[in-house]
Amino acid sequence: MTSFTPSDPEFAQRVRDSFARQGLMATLGARLVRVEAGEVDIEMPITPGVSQQHGFAHAGAVAAIADSACGYAAFSLMPADGGVLAVEFKINLMAPAAGESLIARARVIRAGRTLSVCQADVDSINGDQVRTVAMMMATIMTVRDRPGVQG
Amino acid sequence: MTSFTPSDPEFAQRVRDSFARQGLMATLGARLVRVEAGEVDIEMPITPGVSQQHGFAHAGAVAAIADSACGYAAFSLMPADGGVLAVEFKINLMAPAAGESLIARARVIRAGRTLSVCQADVDSINGDQVRTVAMMMATIMTVRDRPGVQG
Amino acid sequence: MTSFTPSDPEFAQRVRDSFARQGLMATLGARLVRVEAGEVDIEMPITPGVSQQHGFAHAGAVAAIADSACGYAAFSLMPADGGVLAVEFKINLMAPAAGESLIARARVIRAGRTLSVCQADVDSINGDQVRTVAMMMATIMTVRDRPGVQG
Amino acid sequence: MTSFTPSDPEFAQRVRDSFARQGLMATLGARLVRVEAGEVDIEMPITPGVSQQHGFAHAGAVAAIADSACGYAAFSLMPADGGVLAVEFKINLMAPAAGESLIARARVIRAGRTLSVCQADVDSINGDQVRTVAMMMATIMTVRDRPGVQG
Repeated sequence: MTSFTPSDPEFAQRVRDSFARQGLMATLGARLVRVEAGEVDIEMPITPGVSQQHGFAHAGAVAAIADSACGYAAFSLMPADGGVLAVEFKINLMAPAAGESLIARARVIRAGRTLSVCQADVDSINGDQVRTVAMMMATIMTVRDRPGVQG
Repeated sequence: MTSFTPSDPEFAQRVRDSFARQGLMATLGARLVRVEAGEVDIEMPITPGVSQQHGFAHAGAVAAIADSACGYAAFSLMPADGGVLAVEFKINLMAPAAGESLIARARVIRAGRTLSVCQADVDSINGDQVRTVAMMMATIMTVRDRPGVQG
Repeated sequence: MTSFTPSDPEFAQRVRDSFARQGLMATLGARLVRVEAGEVDIEMPITPGVSQQHGFAHAGAVAAIADSACGYAAFSLMPADGGVLAVEFKINLMAPAAGESLIARARVIRAGRTLSVCQADVDSINGDQVRTVAMMMATIMTVRDRPGVQG
Repeated sequence: MTSFTPSDPEFAQRVRDSFARQGLMATLGARLVRVEAGEVDIEMPITPGVSQQHGFAHAGAVAAIADSACGYAAFSLMPADGGVLAVEFKINLMAPAAGESLIARARVIRAGRTLSVCQADVDSINGDQVRTVAMMMATIMTVRDRPGVQG
């Protein structure tokens, strides 16, 4: 496992502040449960409000927490004045997202000056049963000097 | 443009009934605005509750309506007793999802017995300005004879 | 369909010169058959040397011509001193790549200063039968001032 | 790491026989260097015949060995009479594919009856330097009872 040295020692606070501004995460009931340099976990309870038609968590909700986890994993390694934007991502849905909650675990695979590549697994938690239900690969951009795109 | 003949003449009602059971779509304020054989549009107002940290719509919310639109475009061509599941999708975010609302326009590219491929554009609407902000390619599966996965 | 104005009037020659340096295209027997501003087509005969185990063209060969077509579609709109690199791509294989030849038709969807997004269809040609066998979405980067990465 | 039990004890020979029929692998100079249940490695020397315009290995050649490795990782777990087809894949190109050779290392993440999900890393080898240059996520299909699609 590659380990990374963050350029901003206050990265964890910066990630928490930015996450708190994501209205969608509050709407989904998602919480930031772990922030390390290059690694971020986000948890979301599986409720009727995030469901698809069979009662599982909707692929869009699964993707939302995985995308935020990937973005903040990359953001944790960015300079203090950088802004973070998702360029693109792909997600494979491998099993029904059923159970009590989901946890997206993201890590940076490549940290570049402009582009970073992150990978996330999403696990479902049901009592003491844990199952990987989805996997994401995402490309994240560091934005500099663009008004309105900071944090 | 390929045109498709639906195997179930009641496909539009079937799509509407299934969409109404997706709790996430209600949570996001998303509405089904067009259902044709192989083509589905979904609209979502851009509100603080679907935002990311800069105030744009979150990539996860953009992906959620595009994924539902792709799934229902494929579902419209499935037999009456088929269930629909997303296998995987990729989305490119091409411009900030800003403005009054977003509309995801999906269409089936290939309708297979087991797997279908769909493509969706997501446009932002701001007054009379329309801009394509994202593009998705999705693989959708027809599920048969699996308890709990119908519609 | 969006139309683009190339910043370099000599774009077609620049594309041809760069394509001629791609050893893989010669190895695959691929030819550049159309170069417009933001649109490039590449053709490849289906021979045993590009096959997979069932005798169809290998997904890697299909991806290779689609990726080159996407890269050169983006490159046609870049400034004269820019270099082109593929950041990532996704491809759906929708039908067996069988017949006499394949043609990858790429076009730019979004031309950005740093990142461009392109889409390509790959059609199989068999006599007068044409069938879309694959679809690609690619993210392409304009590289500036990096030694060894020009053209 | 999940470990898998192959349903066909002769899986390694079955993989080798099918690989030997892929004309593209011979054209690219690629060799099967490791076959385990659910894990396959393929190596390819970096030569002018697989290059892009800057002299690195072409993204299409990188994708070709990663796709074959993913397909055969999935194939190793399939029943003896199954055929293997790539449904779709995504690849991120993270660094120039330079050096003496490339090695694609694929493993099955999810082995399903119809669909499997595989992940591959592609490393460049240059003397004793090893660097990950690309990462793939692929969806692979098990085909049954389709004439011409076996192995």
